Amino acid sequence: MRARVLIRLKRGILDVQGSAVLRALAGLGYAELRELRVGKVVELDLDAADPTAAAVRVEEMCRKLLANPVTEDFSIECPLP
Amino acid sequence: MRARVLIRLKRGILDVQGSAVLRALAGLGYAELRELRVGKVVELDLDAADPTAAAVRVEEMCRKLLANPVTEDFSIECPLP
Repeated sequence: MRARVLIRLKRGILDVQGSAVLRALAGLGYAELRELRVGKVVELDLDAADPTAAAVRVEEMCRKLLANPVTEDFSIECPLP
Repeated sequence: MRARVLIRLKRGILDVQGSAVLRALAGLGYAELRELRVGKVVELDLDAADPTAAAVRVEEMCRKLLANPVTEDFSIECPLP
């Protein structure tokens, strides 16, 4: 079963990488950009009988290792089509 | 209008970060993992009248700056709900 985790900096945290990319794109002529944030995507393939159990396990992985709960939020898409 | 870009290493490219995370999770007892790959997510907020035009602009940004066409694939979700 495939699952996807999106990990993003929390709203209040300054996203330095995102600001740099936004400025670089503005310099290339993309003046329509209002905001840009950069995060991580983790795509997993795991053995699991049912999607609910898999999502629970993936959430555990996020809390224990994948995301930093102080600075990051995460969302889980499980199962992926 | 909000859009999301997922940027991942191409299939044939060794994902060192993903391998390290997979090993760390296996060490924590997550033996059900078969594969894990780490990529980037870029979330954008841009001024655009219609979703098709916005998607075209975002694809241009990917080709010019966001993704490395030699090593990375990208996919665009536009508009985001």
